[in-house]
Amino acid sequence: MTHKIKVFLGIDWGGTYIKAGLVDSQGKIVKKKVYCSSQLREKQGFINNLKLLLNDFSSFNIKSIGIGVPGIVDVEKGFIYYLPNIPGWEKYPLQSVLEKNLGLPVSIDNDANAFALAESRFGAAKGKKRAIFLTLGTGLGGAIISGGKLLEGKTSANELGHVPINLAGRLCGCGGRGCIETYVGNRYLLSHYKRLKKNKTKVKDVKELFQRGLDGEGEALVVWKEFSHNLGKFLAGMINVFNPQVIIFGGGVSGAFKLFKPLVAEEIKKQVMWPQNLGLKLVRAKLKNAGIIGAALLASEGIRNKDKGRSEKK
Amino acid sequence: MTHKIKVFLGIDWGGTYIKAGLVDSQGKIVKKKVYCSSQLREKQGFINNLKLLLNDFSSFNIKSIGIGVPGIVDVEKGFIYYLPNIPGWEKYPLQSVLEKNLGLPVSIDNDANAFALAESRFGAAKGKKRAIFLTLGTGLGGAIISGGKLLEGKTSANELGHVPINLAGRLCGCGGRGCIETYVGNRYLLSHYKRLKKNKTKVKDVKELFQRGLDGEGEALVVWKEFSHNLGKFLAGMINVFNPQVIIFGGGVSGAFKLFKPLVAEEIKKQVMWPQNLGLKLVRAKLKNAGIIGAALLASEGIRNKDKGRSEKK
Repeated sequence: MTHKIKVFLGIDWGGTYIKAGLVDSQGKIVKKKVYCSSQLREKQGFINNLKLLLNDFSSFNIKSIGIGVPGIVDVEKGFIYYLPNIPGWEKYPLQSVLEKNLGLPVSIDNDANAFALAESRFGAAKGKKRAIFLTLGTGLGGAIISGGKLLEGKTSANELGHVPINLAGRLCGCGGRGCIETYVGNRYLLSHYKRLKKNKTKVKDVKELFQRGLDGEGEALVVWKEFSHNLGKFLAGMINVFNPQVIIFGGGVSGAFKLFKPLVAEEIKKQVMWPQNLGLKLVRAKLKNAGIIGAALLASEGIRNKDKGRSEKK
Repeated sequence: MTHKIKVFLGIDWGGTYIKAGLVDSQGKIVKKKVYCSSQLREKQGFINNLKLLLNDFSSFNIKSIGIGVPGIVDVEKGFIYYLPNIPGWEKYPLQSVLEKNLGLPVSIDNDANAFALAESRFGAAKGKKRAIFLTLGTGLGGAIISGGKLLEGKTSANELGHVPINLAGRLCGCGGRGCIETYVGNRYLLSHYKRLKKNKTKVKDVKELFQRGLDGEGEALVVWKEFSHNLGKFLAGMINVFNPQVIIFGGGVSGAFKLFKPLVAEEIKKQVMWPQNLGLKLVRAKLKNAGIIGAALLASEGIRNKDKGRSEKK
């Protein structure tokens, strides 16, 4: 049986896993599949797995494919500049290689941009023209919606995690120093906590650190207060630049939203120019499968820079 | 005699002066006038002077008026939130008051945005879709062109000078702490230099500090090196976010461009994620009367958020 309904294949690619979904034009996931394999770090393995996936989905009317990529992408030409955590993909023309191999139009972008697009169309930023998106996890992913669209760029850009917040800061994974990511990433939070505890305690993950904060444990609260101070200060600067209507918090660390939201809001208020902050809302991300839905939106909305990109060449 | 050619009145309002010009659709100034008066700080004085101005220009075919305002503006509704250096204008509906008094359509925006618009249409950023604009002077004014247009906002936004660059920084005029403005403003440069000289020398202005740097004087070079370090670090963060094609330097301190450009470029390179920086150019502002021409462009291009603003209400 062939399904008649038009769908878009959204792929959230995290390195060793693929979360794939067929998404209809209302943002509903019609079918979902998750693959886990170290093969996915390799080019040929990645392509082969996508072929298998398309085979599994062969009864569907797939119009195009979108991929959220964990790295910096040239969105005009559809190639990967590099993936910070997966070596070997430098300057790889992923879009054209996949189009040749899979026989369908492909759009690629950064995964944080895909997340932002999904939350902007169907989630916590629905109907908003200006929004800032953060994915708080090991690193700090970021994206901007301006005028209802992803901020224009030749690259996937929007690397909010790599805005320096201290002139003489720690070395960041990106090679720079003092990036906000080095002050709010979960590795930093945990190591900072252990230092405060003089290494006399174990803490499994940020979730546990969150619970200890909720329980009122002194050192855990210190960590969350500093986290909020740093994040709020950074956000105040971005609010001064973008005048967003809403800031959306996603990613694992956003589990502690209840705890840090009032502290972040307080810090923003101290630092920001007040007209920039009028009516601003701080909100948790809403969608369960934002990565997949956003990738499908990359496919259905096409690439970003239409006047220079793929849609013109064809 | 009445001139037939269609012109736009651009007004660069600096507090105690008005630089006014009639600008044609090619960005050429047909006629220019400068008024200086402390009356211009007062509402009625400001309105009266604009009436006189229109009277002087009565033989011209003026289509509309644009004003670059030294403060934060609501560009949707055309009112002033506040002017940092001129008290008494809080929440003042400048646009509607002037339209009633002058009988012509009026558009208002922040003066740094007007400058950016002029350089983007006719100056150093002509033809570029993505550009960052800095006016280096007492403070640090900033503006963004994204997708060929001013970054959208309800406010005039784009307050690049008030992005914090240090977690525990000095108090800024805006009320925040550690804003980049407090590290690159001319007052800071001069006081830093005097401190290094242990107050044993006099320096008239930044121009003289620039000359001493060019002459190779140690302390002056230290000041320019630190200036460049701070500015470059800040710009790297903005480049990571915006992926601009060009950064334009205007304002009095940009007189020292020759001296600080290579140092700023070096610092950017150290800090930035390289794909964001590809092909980026650092350039001095080009236009002589960018403030006037930009204000006229505010008039000719209309207000920014057309779907919510004045152009819809009419």
